[in-house]
Amino acid sequence: MNDRVAPPAQSSPARERLWDRYRDEALADRLSSMPWNGALDTMLCHRSVRSYLDQPLAPGLLELIVAAAQSAPTTSNLQAWSVIAVQDKARKARLAGYAANQKHIHDAPLLLLFVADLARLHRISEERGYPGAGLSYIEAFIFGVADASFAAQNTVVAAESLGLGCCFIGAMRNQPQAVADELALPDESMVVFGMTIGYPDPAIATAVKPRLPQGVVLHHERYSPPQKADIAVYDERMADFRVEQEMRMIDWTEQMARRVKDEAALTGRHVLKQFLQDRGLILK
Amino acid sequence: MNDRVAPPAQSSPARERLWDRYRDEALADRLSSMPWNGALDTMLCHRSVRSYLDQPLAPGLLELIVAAAQSAPTTSNLQAWSVIAVQDKARKARLAGYAANQKHIHDAPLLLLFVADLARLHRISEERGYPGAGLSYIEAFIFGVADASFAAQNTVVAAESLGLGCCFIGAMRNQPQAVADELALPDESMVVFGMTIGYPDPAIATAVKPRLPQGVVLHHERYSPPQKADIAVYDERMADFRVEQEMRMIDWTEQMARRVKDEAALTGRHVLKQFLQDRGLILK
Repeated sequence: MNDRVAPPAQSSPARERLWDRYRDEALADRLSSMPWNGALDTMLCHRSVRSYLDQPLAPGLLELIVAAAQSAPTTSNLQAWSVIAVQDKARKARLAGYAANQKHIHDAPLLLLFVADLARLHRISEERGYPGAGLSYIEAFIFGVADASFAAQNTVVAAESLGLGCCFIGAMRNQPQAVADELALPDESMVVFGMTIGYPDPAIATAVKPRLPQGVVLHHERYSPPQKADIAVYDERMADFRVEQEMRMIDWTEQMARRVKDEAALTGRHVLKQFLQDRGLILK
Repeated sequence: MNDRVAPPAQSSPARERLWDRYRDEALADRLSSMPWNGALDTMLCHRSVRSYLDQPLAPGLLELIVAAAQSAPTTSNLQAWSVIAVQDKARKARLAGYAANQKHIHDAPLLLLFVADLARLHRISEERGYPGAGLSYIEAFIFGVADASFAAQNTVVAAESLGLGCCFIGAMRNQPQAVADELALPDESMVVFGMTIGYPDPAIATAVKPRLPQGVVLHHERYSPPQKADIAVYDERMADFRVEQEMRMIDWTEQMARRVKDEAALTGRHVLKQFLQDRGLILK
């Protein structure tokens, strides 16, 4: 089942990448002769990188990556997002302190903070003499989060295509007020997540994490609840992965169920609704 | 200023793509000798496509694209999203009817609906005997929207790398209950946006839309409010673009300010808070 070496006759970049992502022989075989290109290869090879060389990004790379980020679609061209690049070690350390003190935030040469930015649209509205009343609805918060996320995902693809590694930092929502203060964020904006970026330490191996069987995530025509058997198959594939990676053994389902079980499991993020409302967001 | 032909000595793929995206000579010059690759080229060349050939996707392409989507990072590997592929013409027409009856929804061979899916995690929690109480917090909705958006952006990059075109459909939030009913969505889930996909009609030209000057979106160390001059420059660049595209003339700032000015400007989406709460989301 977990033989990483496919028979040579069937081998192709598509087959190998798809096998790594799903560990599903049937899917990998079925798609083994599909067209392949550098963009697909970059995306399929994604893995989070948490160990970086002590080396800043080459000049211009940040601007190039942000150009890819800005090339992502945005809702009605509202461009309701910003990104803050933090390289100052002391500021990065303080931000790490608000985010479970994750070691890779200290170590990465660059920390990006992705902002759902309705403040810029508020300012533009004021200057034009409009009330900007739509910005206080959850609709606006949704497109702010979506726009920031589209941009962030292009950031991941651009960075990895250039040989960099990165890791999302959801823990930047653990202490949202402290993070907002540190970054001088205006009202009607919020850091949705951070991202560490740097040159991967070649001494630390990383691996592609298997995802849920495609049939669990991809539905046809209407939503179909997941089959227990498909989730069980994924638990097995993730167990194999955890053995290989020498990670603590726990079922994916058990881990996920614990991750969302109650307020305490949210590691501080239960205050986000009040935090957002205090900033003039999601009021309606 | 808007001469599309750069002096041959300075020309490079990076310079040309960056010029198209920003129409900023200085930035294009500064980054003209940066490394370049297929992934960057695909992302920088993005433009929305709304005119499609009457031709279904080649077999396997949808699965290949979804593999790229699933390869995107997800919050704590929660994978809190789903995608529904609609190809049935009658269903697609009904969904178009809920989304401002946009012509390209009817015409595209494939409509994808991206779902912030906390229902799957709710089900997993129940089966494991956990309450899943964290799922009713706005924190969970944020990671659901973010996970769906990361996946959707990889979908865009994968589709475009394969010669397909696509267009986000935010209007799928105009009548959220009708959309949820049509797709048999369970509670604790929501269609965040749709996406049309198909082979671009070569008879219909499309163009790369300029984005805000990089300095407006990229901040260093702390958030800095946008400079009026930078916004004015963007209004000028967008005006040039609108003339070239024979689009209705309106300042970008004016258009954006109107887009968020009040409840009526949200085209039905002012009901989203109640809709989400009725589904067990964003209660806390």
